[in-house]
Amino acid sequence: MAESGDTTGKVLYKDDTHTYIWLGGENKYRKGVIQTMQYLIIDNGRGTLLDPGGVHLFPKVVAAVSRFIAIDKIDTIFFSHQDPDVSSGIALWLGITNAKVYISALWTRFLPHFGIVDTTRIIPIDDRGGSAKLASGAEVRFIPSHFMHSPGQFALWDARSKILFTGDIGAAVFGDGEETVFVDDFSKHVHLIEDFHRRYMASNAVVRKWCTQVSRLNPTMIAPQHGAIYRNESVTAFLDWLSALRCGTDLADQIFGF
Amino acid sequence: MAESGDTTGKVLYKDDTHTYIWLGGENKYRKGVIQTMQYLIIDNGRGTLLDPGGVHLFPKVVAAVSRFIAIDKIDTIFFSHQDPDVSSGIALWLGITNAKVYISALWTRFLPHFGIVDTTRIIPIDDRGGSAKLASGAEVRFIPSHFMHSPGQFALWDARSKILFTGDIGAAVFGDGEETVFVDDFSKHVHLIEDFHRRYMASNAVVRKWCTQVSRLNPTMIAPQHGAIYRNESVTAFLDWLSALRCGTDLADQIFGF
Repeated sequence: MAESGDTTGKVLYKDDTHTYIWLGGENKYRKGVIQTMQYLIIDNGRGTLLDPGGVHLFPKVVAAVSRFIAIDKIDTIFFSHQDPDVSSGIALWLGITNAKVYISALWTRFLPHFGIVDTTRIIPIDDRGGSAKLASGAEVRFIPSHFMHSPGQFALWDARSKILFTGDIGAAVFGDGEETVFVDDFSKHVHLIEDFHRRYMASNAVVRKWCTQVSRLNPTMIAPQHGAIYRNESVTAFLDWLSALRCGTDLADQIFGF
Repeated sequence: MAESGDTTGKVLYKDDTHTYIWLGGENKYRKGVIQTMQYLIIDNGRGTLLDPGGVHLFPKVVAAVSRFIAIDKIDTIFFSHQDPDVSSGIALWLGITNAKVYISALWTRFLPHFGIVDTTRIIPIDDRGGSAKLASGAEVRFIPSHFMHSPGQFALWDARSKILFTGDIGAAVFGDGEETVFVDDFSKHVHLIEDFHRRYMASNAVVRKWCTQVSRLNPTMIAPQHGAIYRNESVTAFLDWLSALRCGTDLADQIFGF
């Protein structure tokens, strides 16, 4: 169960110039719609939004952001991949901010299909990743996460807070009333993530490679777009579990049925 | 170069009760936006739309459809997968038709993020596929095509016309003025499809498995959502080429850079 007040957001990290905020989950389970979480980094008074979500959630996310920063101070938007729940609000966000949008180069030509989009504001991320400097000089890095699940997918590593935002990686699907903000006991959480990762992640070879790389960053938290935030021991427990998972094309015979 | 008049649509198959129509490509190349093609099956006077596309193209596709059938006679919409260029117009299409939407069960909970969507009109397709009966009794089958590229993806087999609609599989990316409607000489087409398939398709194991299954259907045409339609010898040539392709996670070391 979420702690009281959690749906209005929670500061995950804060120093003099840099704040990492979980903008809250949806406090009401809506039947048949996957729940999402959004994050905001405020660095020297400028905002970076992570997977701000679809058309569907736009009013809610605008309101949540505005509790922390004026909307026109958002100058960076990061999309981990191309899915509707991640990025279908792009035309709305470009309309109310001057932000640049970072997304895998695989998807820049697909985004305009969401509506009227100024393509000069979309910055393609090369397959092998890259980085962006924030206002204070702090750096965020784009960590290749391809085929987990999207062919062009990135996690975002915030070196200052040591929080890794992972998009769909680590996603949990809660039942009504089961929501928690943090994962503190991984053994109690694993049943909420098992089916999703087994089916959507492309193969063990890929997830293992990713986990090895991510472990070297030594994140204090892993923050996915759905479910709950891994912290303390649950970070390592999650990476160990994912490294060993047979998934996706490893199970093609079962999944395809031919 | 497309033949004259091709942008207004072309009948690919016709018998007394069943017509398969290519609704046309975009006749003007728009910089930075991937071009798409839509298809319409009319069966006993009722319409089935295949990957009708995003918000961006909605007015154009409505106009194209209306040259062949009244919009309110569309009772089935098929989405091969969840990408913006395929399905982001869902709320608009549900608004002007009473159609049911078929899509992989993996994506039914993501579609409402495109906007206000009545989830009772979305029919999930199970991993191993399935079929739907059209008005005349003709059957369309959903052929599992997972991880090509989407984790939950289907092709649509129209047994009457023997045309296989494949979504992104077979997609070509044309330069300005290079468009053709059909692929008649595969050796001249391969350079337009190579980079896309190598990068977006998940692995050789998966594409090979799919090609074996699809070859057994013996399609007269393979109709993708981007590029050109394979017919005659180019159908087999494409399947032979794809079967042998190393792609996606096979090339993880190159793609990830770690």
